[in-house]
Amino acid sequence: MKKSIAIDMDQVLADFYSKLCVTYNENFGTNFTDEEFLLTTQRDLPREDAKKLFALLNEPGYFRDLKVLDEDAIDVIRELQEHYEIYIATAAMDVPGSFTAKYDWLMEYLPFIKTQNIVFCGNKAVIHTDYLIDDSPRQLKSFKGTGILYSMPYNRSEEGFMRVNNWKEIKQYFIKQLEIV
Amino acid sequence: MKKSIAIDMDQVLADFYSKLCVTYNENFGTNFTDEEFLLTTQRDLPREDAKKLFALLNEPGYFRDLKVLDEDAIDVIRELQEHYEIYIATAAMDVPGSFTAKYDWLMEYLPFIKTQNIVFCGNKAVIHTDYLIDDSPRQLKSFKGTGILYSMPYNRSEEGFMRVNNWKEIKQYFIKQLEIV
Repeated sequence: MKKSIAIDMDQVLADFYSKLCVTYNENFGTNFTDEEFLLTTQRDLPREDAKKLFALLNEPGYFRDLKVLDEDAIDVIRELQEHYEIYIATAAMDVPGSFTAKYDWLMEYLPFIKTQNIVFCGNKAVIHTDYLIDDSPRQLKSFKGTGILYSMPYNRSEEGFMRVNNWKEIKQYFIKQLEIV
Repeated sequence: MKKSIAIDMDQVLADFYSKLCVTYNENFGTNFTDEEFLLTTQRDLPREDAKKLFALLNEPGYFRDLKVLDEDAIDVIRELQEHYEIYIATAAMDVPGSFTAKYDWLMEYLPFIKTQNIVFCGNKAVIHTDYLIDDSPRQLKSFKGTGILYSMPYNRSEEGFMRVNNWKEIKQYFIKQLEIV
């Protein structure tokens, strides 16, 4: 039986932070570059600002026009699908306004993925696949299978996970797994 | 650690078939009673009619006003939540127009469920919980944990699953599990 891989969306497939940086600068009088922004955590945003940011992200179309994070991603997933059962697992419950935009984005960029294999969830402890590729150490810690950390500046100090830096590396890793088996 | 239970929505929590029966009769010139309708499978619907039915179900508000299937459900879930980690897992990907209505329905009837524990999926093979309560034998067969079949007339000939007929029985079963452990 094929092994299964769950793939996170934001910052693994879709470039969420580039748009977030623009949104942030426009609304909070900051002047972050993309690079600086990827190092911030926004944890200390005042309550009112956090509410405003959430309202902006929760607009129905916000997630629809995100760019693909790595141009190799689509081809690699198409290829891996021949050997693995691929699921897309995104923590959409954090932003319920994003459901339709996320679904439409996946239909546009990954039309070859079965809709039955798309999962909108919250806590990824509930995901039952052999692997999960995610940029969030918190999600990987609660996941029960083999977690793979998609490297981002904000997770650079996390230890204890296998890391990948781009989709070429993801392809290499999973093709190698097939040879080992 | 708490054991976890995933709960399906349609025909376990929400009374989807009553509304579907009305929709069906109004659109296809039939005259089914609720009871008759629960015995049909609609598998033989002509292609054009199936498309029309899907379009109707996919309207953004269709799933918003479903009644609660069993008046005990809410209280039982609230009580079980003290002893179990409860997830709601609904195959929403079949009807992507239903996302917001389903989310809002859950917020209305189960406001005490963490949004992080709501899952919109397709194939429930991807759900990692100890138990799944579902009316669909197909979903229970692909699920990896302990499946519990919520009895409905259309699944009456299925064997090999533990059955429950209502939420009082669900409560009894899970309270008993706690005593056994």
